[in-house]
Amino acid sequence: MSTIESRLADLGIVLPDPPKPVASYVPAVRSGGLLIVSGQLPFRDGALIATGPVPSSVSIETASEAARWCGINGLSVARMALDGDLDRIRRVVRLGVFVQSDDRFDAQPKVANGASDLMVEVLGDAGRHARAAVGVNALPLDTSVEVEFMFEIA
Amino acid sequence: MSTIESRLADLGIVLPDPPKPVASYVPAVRSGGLLIVSGQLPFRDGALIATGPVPSSVSIETASEAARWCGINGLSVARMALDGDLDRIRRVVRLGVFVQSDDRFDAQPKVANGASDLMVEVLGDAGRHARAAVGVNALPLDTSVEVEFMFEIA
Amino acid sequence: MSTIESRLADLGIVLPDPPKPVASYVPAVRSGGLLIVSGQLPFRDGALIATGPVPSSVSIETASEAARWCGINGLSVARMALDGDLDRIRRVVRLGVFVQSDDRFDAQPKVANGASDLMVEVLGDAGRHARAAVGVNALPLDTSVEVEFMFEIA
Repeated sequence: MSTIESRLADLGIVLPDPPKPVASYVPAVRSGGLLIVSGQLPFRDGALIATGPVPSSVSIETASEAARWCGINGLSVARMALDGDLDRIRRVVRLGVFVQSDDRFDAQPKVANGASDLMVEVLGDAGRHARAAVGVNALPLDTSVEVEFMFEIA
Repeated sequence: MSTIESRLADLGIVLPDPPKPVASYVPAVRSGGLLIVSGQLPFRDGALIATGPVPSSVSIETASEAARWCGINGLSVARMALDGDLDRIRRVVRLGVFVQSDDRFDAQPKVANGASDLMVEVLGDAGRHARAAVGVNALPLDTSVEVEFMFEIA
Repeated sequence: MSTIESRLADLGIVLPDPPKPVASYVPAVRSGGLLIVSGQLPFRDGALIATGPVPSSVSIETASEAARWCGINGLSVARMALDGDLDRIRRVVRLGVFVQSDDRFDAQPKVANGASDLMVEVLGDAGRHARAAVGVNALPLDTSVEVEFMFEIA
């Protein structure tokens, strides 16, 4: 078992089959040393775990858990794109985090940490990344959170 | 005529002169093997074809057509940046799609497909890309859609 | 003193200590020839200079000044990531600008110019960049503007 796969096992994280994109694009594209992963939604067992804006429909805590699931799905897509070998990830370069927000809700960083913390739990120092986290008034399928990824790969 | 130019001709698509940026930046920047194209608006013959939020001001169908025009303008910018030679595009790496949305409108993927489908129509498999599509409450010039692009180039 | 440092001095710009990220990520990541800087807020002397939406809470002029401060903070982070040597910046590749906006406010480009113009003032032609500027209904710490950066570095 690879280093990262055993870290996942230690954390009790089972990567699901990669979610299918909900539209005419692909889950991930490799270009040079970069792997770009499409915006992921918090699907778990085929259903979104959080919909609607934060905090009126969804608590910060639940939204953060949703961000974590976006991260799990992003790693699942990355594994597929890397022919099953997550150890080819050299670094998480950037996360783009979009949080469906009530007007002037301002704790997007707390929500986004659900995804950011996961990257470090799974990948260690290589999981530390640059990030842009923002609020928006609407997201696909009414998801509370969407996260996109840029990885450096070997 | 190049491969991609003849594909455009077959599709009946005439690339316009690249739209001028509406502010102090440039339409595109090349860096290494990447070409980054600034956020494009759905200008056609000098006017935006869709303004206001989806769906209260603009239907999903019209917004999707607007996304397609963002794509046409993005290709026009890319052609200029590549000294007229679109065949230097190896791959569309990523689209970032922003849809002006009523609160909780959740069909951004359908809107974004207007741009995504165009990439595949024009570039074939090389047009398949990663994507982040989100809703926002406001966009420049009240446009209904804005699309930015990352291409891999030769 | 380096070229860029003396340009900063000529402009009377003193780069502050890099703002600490407000969450569990890092200010910047280098990958190949790229330096990705996390979304920056308009901190000056430890406080945000603009909060709330444009234009109801903050004028376009103030928001543009805030965007400029996001730029100053972004350069400060870049300097730290480049071991103090801003002359290693070859090109500003892309700015992502998020403006907290009232519904249908449509002058995000004017706001974003505060950051864009700074890049050109400090870096000259190398400061010219691709850009995506959009409105959003909510941002971290209620900031009026957030700007992220992609630099090409030597």
